[in-house]
Amino acid sequence: MAVTHKMEDNLKTAANVARGLALEAVAMAHSGHLGLPLGCAEIGAALFGYLLQLNPKQPRWINRDRFVLSAGHGTMFLYAWLYLSGFAVDELSRFRTRGSNLPGHPEFGVTPGVECTTGPLGQGIANAVGFAISEKMLHNRINNIHEILDYHVVCLCGDGCLQEGISHETCSFAGHLKLDNLILIYDSNGITIDAALEETQSEDVRRRFEAYGFFVQTVDGHNINQIIEAYERAKMADRPSLIIARTIIGYGIPGIAGTNGAHGEAGIKFAAETKKNLGLPEQQFFVDEKTKALFGNRRQQWLRDYNYWKNRFDAWKVKNGDSYSLFFENHTLESTSRDILNMGAISTRDAGGKILNALAEKNPKIVTGSADLFLSNKNYLLGKGDFGRKNYGGRNISFGIREHAMGAILNGMAYDGVFQPSGATFLAFSDYLRPAIRVAAMAKLPVVYIFTHDSIAVGQDGPTHQPVEMLAALRSIPNLDVFRPADAEECEGAYEAAFLRKNGPTALILSRQDLPILTEISNRKTGTLRGAYIARKETENLQLILLATGSELAIALEAAKDFSQFVRVVSVPSMEVFKRQRDGYGEEILPKSCKLRLAVEAGVAMPWYAFVGPEGQIVSVDDFGFSAPGKQVQEYFGFTVEIVREKIRSLLTKICEFIFDENLALL
Amino acid sequence: MAVTHKMEDNLKTAANVARGLALEAVAMAHSGHLGLPLGCAEIGAALFGYLLQLNPKQPRWINRDRFVLSAGHGTMFLYAWLYLSGFAVDELSRFRTRGSNLPGHPEFGVTPGVECTTGPLGQGIANAVGFAISEKMLHNRINNIHEILDYHVVCLCGDGCLQEGISHETCSFAGHLKLDNLILIYDSNGITIDAALEETQSEDVRRRFEAYGFFVQTVDGHNINQIIEAYERAKMADRPSLIIARTIIGYGIPGIAGTNGAHGEAGIKFAAETKKNLGLPEQQFFVDEKTKALFGNRRQQWLRDYNYWKNRFDAWKVKNGDSYSLFFENHTLESTSRDILNMGAISTRDAGGKILNALAEKNPKIVTGSADLFLSNKNYLLGKGDFGRKNYGGRNISFGIREHAMGAILNGMAYDGVFQPSGATFLAFSDYLRPAIRVAAMAKLPVVYIFTHDSIAVGQDGPTHQPVEMLAALRSIPNLDVFRPADAEECEGAYEAAFLRKNGPTALILSRQDLPILTEISNRKTGTLRGAYIARKETENLQLILLATGSELAIALEAAKDFSQFVRVVSVPSMEVFKRQRDGYGEEILPKSCKLRLAVEAGVAMPWYAFVGPEGQIVSVDDFGFSAPGKQVQEYFGFTVEIVREKIRSLLTKICEFIFDENLALL
Repeated sequence: MAVTHKMEDNLKTAANVARGLALEAVAMAHSGHLGLPLGCAEIGAALFGYLLQLNPKQPRWINRDRFVLSAGHGTMFLYAWLYLSGFAVDELSRFRTRGSNLPGHPEFGVTPGVECTTGPLGQGIANAVGFAISEKMLHNRINNIHEILDYHVVCLCGDGCLQEGISHETCSFAGHLKLDNLILIYDSNGITIDAALEETQSEDVRRRFEAYGFFVQTVDGHNINQIIEAYERAKMADRPSLIIARTIIGYGIPGIAGTNGAHGEAGIKFAAETKKNLGLPEQQFFVDEKTKALFGNRRQQWLRDYNYWKNRFDAWKVKNGDSYSLFFENHTLESTSRDILNMGAISTRDAGGKILNALAEKNPKIVTGSADLFLSNKNYLLGKGDFGRKNYGGRNISFGIREHAMGAILNGMAYDGVFQPSGATFLAFSDYLRPAIRVAAMAKLPVVYIFTHDSIAVGQDGPTHQPVEMLAALRSIPNLDVFRPADAEECEGAYEAAFLRKNGPTALILSRQDLPILTEISNRKTGTLRGAYIARKETENLQLILLATGSELAIALEAAKDFSQFVRVVSVPSMEVFKRQRDGYGEEILPKSCKLRLAVEAGVAMPWYAFVGPEGQIVSVDDFGFSAPGKQVQEYFGFTVEIVREKIRSLLTKICEFIFDENLALL
Repeated sequence: MAVTHKMEDNLKTAANVARGLALEAVAMAHSGHLGLPLGCAEIGAALFGYLLQLNPKQPRWINRDRFVLSAGHGTMFLYAWLYLSGFAVDELSRFRTRGSNLPGHPEFGVTPGVECTTGPLGQGIANAVGFAISEKMLHNRINNIHEILDYHVVCLCGDGCLQEGISHETCSFAGHLKLDNLILIYDSNGITIDAALEETQSEDVRRRFEAYGFFVQTVDGHNINQIIEAYERAKMADRPSLIIARTIIGYGIPGIAGTNGAHGEAGIKFAAETKKNLGLPEQQFFVDEKTKALFGNRRQQWLRDYNYWKNRFDAWKVKNGDSYSLFFENHTLESTSRDILNMGAISTRDAGGKILNALAEKNPKIVTGSADLFLSNKNYLLGKGDFGRKNYGGRNISFGIREHAMGAILNGMAYDGVFQPSGATFLAFSDYLRPAIRVAAMAKLPVVYIFTHDSIAVGQDGPTHQPVEMLAALRSIPNLDVFRPADAEECEGAYEAAFLRKNGPTALILSRQDLPILTEISNRKTGTLRGAYIARKETENLQLILLATGSELAIALEAAKDFSQFVRVVSVPSMEVFKRQRDGYGEEILPKSCKLRLAVEAGVAMPWYAFVGPEGQIVSVDDFGFSAPGKQVQEYFGFTVEIVREKIRSLLTKICEFIFDENLALL
């Protein structure tokens, strides 16, 4: 329903005020993006000035509308509207300066009201779908007759987001799931950084989204009433919505508006004229009285709405103590079933599946998914149902062959914070979701990745399916914990660490092939929780340290047997966790005095030099594999007991000649 | 036009024969995928038995139709048809065994007739678009009145390919470019690995592709005449085509056909019944006389067609010696302009742009592109035109915000081998195309990636745009050469190495900010071509080696000045190239006797341990950056002359106390 003329007028004024704020913040920083904040000002006015249900004093209120700025470079759009709305953001003059809460792109955890870290294009749409899935899941699980959940997820995206492949994966999936709580607003300005959009794109976006099952509307993005009416219709739709808003990029900047020059900060040299164009005075960061009054009223209304909701929520809480405690309180992680340890040799993917099921049994927040590889990743939660449009209660999400979307949707769910999301694919395909893993690490999200088929032992599928560099590449990401457990019990430790972690994501790297249970080692689980530990201590004097992870630990243990007087075997399930240990633990496990070291891992050598030194030796895979039975590939690259034993023998011989007689037999 | 009943009958028989071959090869290997080879057998019969223009004796014939199996797991489809067509493939009984040319997924360079390495889903479609672009480019450049180029690019893909985001990026782009030489065949079997497609997808694929501007037809994938007629219509279309072929996955396997169980090798236990179902005898790898005759005739026809073409080509060659020599002969790389070295401080992205322009001026095969960042990546070829549907002669490809498609399209062009493709984006977004970089490295493709904005010095855009782990992650990929030049002249060496390389891709990592020209060093270019070199030799006795790359080299040189008697500064533009040097070059540059080493690079430390040892020191960035002016971020992480100088001083003091007096002044 259209707003009154007076309201429309107030919102129009606020739009220009917000334009002025963005312009001045970017001008002051000499850096930033004007195109979106100026082009989408009426969209911002409609959303923040009229449509969105928020609480600036409680930015994480569970029933707020989630607003995601997928086109993260337009961050001054977001800051300007958060500022006007009364969120606790710093002075806009501190935009893009060190220590302010107004960084160059939106960052989760830094700015109140910023729902997620965006900038890498397209991912924000998937984050929004993650929020929408999270809402559907929670809605399904609680008694909602009190309407304690009636929020929407609104995402503003640009041409860049919709050109990115992840937008296809995500929106096809959102349409399939009939996420009617999702409203996607497309800032359709016909311009990309380099040129007019028509230089790179001719697609019919409406038709494309109708093909996905979206309800599609087109509006004039500078017409506030059209935006509001479209939004209201979108809320009523029985499926996700796309609102195509035709806008002029950099609206108001003379000579630049509507061109690719308007994307970045080029417009700041026309700041004075632009302000005049927009009817703004010279005063910096000017907010007029009408806009102040508009948002003053808005804050009162938000508070009334919140209080009204709070009453409903409290009433619900009284009647639904169990639900409340299940989904609104924190859980400790219950210790898992020990049965897997009595099952004989078992792949860590199989062991992991059993552990995950045990964890999920006790913790209703745990949900999981797979990019069409549940049957291979083995992380399906038995008896917990399939999440889908007919069953939002299901805890298994079949993402389809959409790894990147999976990664960024998991992020969205983690931002939301109600559920504890995990997702799986082959380790070789971790690159497909790598951009989302990076953001999870940066935004400190407790997402768990389950990557199975962890080495050349995959065998016949050949080099495309044999991970080689993925372990190193994942370990290179700051704040990502990577675990590669050696048996079912290390696996248990790895899962516990992953699901207990609060400040960042974890990658669990699991074998396809069976691995023996290493019962000879007593401290596998506690050791795993410290990242590395002594799997077998030398019996006399230490001469060589053998380091290994995953499937290679059993090989290392066997190969070192003949030299157990002098050789220590160290299991290193997680380098990152090990590096965080304090109080001399590192020295205890890897004493500096023992410089002779040999690492054994079926991946590129790079991560191991930190442990063995430039003259240390590494049995590694520094080339792509080949298609043959796994054992043959392992043998070719040196992953057999015999080859590792020979390595040990020759190292000991070379450096510690005193140990051996001339015939290389032990003295 | 429909084929005769007799021909249709022969093709049907051949389809069942091919099914038998695939079934037995998979059964013998106990590994592989039956779903596609059995489901698409009639498509294979139509293509290889009737439609495709090939030359089994000259698999790389320039005017062959390119057939890309994007659904690479269906590789026995390809091998069976190549085998029947007379390509030099090994005995099918050797499928997935070591040393055969029939690996588990198609691999370029291994099997005659295999156009590209596929398996990671979706990329094959982009490879096909790369082939199609390559054809358009060549067609435009040569006098084609002799019709020496009239081939098509045919790509067979499945649900997995079309769910992947790269299919969106690629097909939207292909539609935009009006690539009428592209025919995409969609094996629409309604099944994914985990379940029925309807569990994860509801989209209207026809509508989606019409939105992209494709000509879309739907056929019964088991009806040979429908396939042939649709293909002939697709060849006549003025835009790219999608043929949706409805098929039954694992056709012929009792109880499994049409279900997700048919995807892999599960069907081999019903091999005998399946063969009976298909009317095949018990004999292994059976090929009946009718099929032998069909392909005997086909080979004769192919030879006649080839000879007819060869005459046309020879006539063309006589009249167009220049074109012939430009595009059908190899070129040495002309040395580039030296002007850039006299321009004062210049960013390596700017220097790189000038070098690329100079190279491209002399070598018409060089083409380049950018994912909407030409203005920032600076790799635009001035005066060489924009590639587009109105100008297939343009040498600059605006890929749009489609990094993954860009990567895999560059691969397609490199597979084709006529042009020398390069493409650019920000280093922070290299993850978006990483899956394609991996395949390029595996398939030994000479693709050049230009990654600018190479460090935290990017500044205000913040951590999403500041690469930190990308250098390490790229260096972890086997057979990818990574260069991070320190000034314009190192940049020249890096470009020369990249464009001369024939057996793998190269990533050029370039700065956004200006870097001084290091004229004090005389051998920057030759040194760069060896991967690492002494930038400044110690004047007396060597005590410490300082290693640096890119923007950090100038800092290292300045910081080490006060200690030049004892400190050697080594520039390491490419670790990979350096590691390949022989004849003691490594020891010459980094003598083992000098164990005190300090590396300085604005990226994670991981790659440097191999050079400095576990006790060596590294000035690195092991966390994400933050949004502030670049200099402030650099300073925070220790990248200033003062901080590095203090590091050197303290290292020298600690280990070589004799050098200093008690006041730490130099003796």
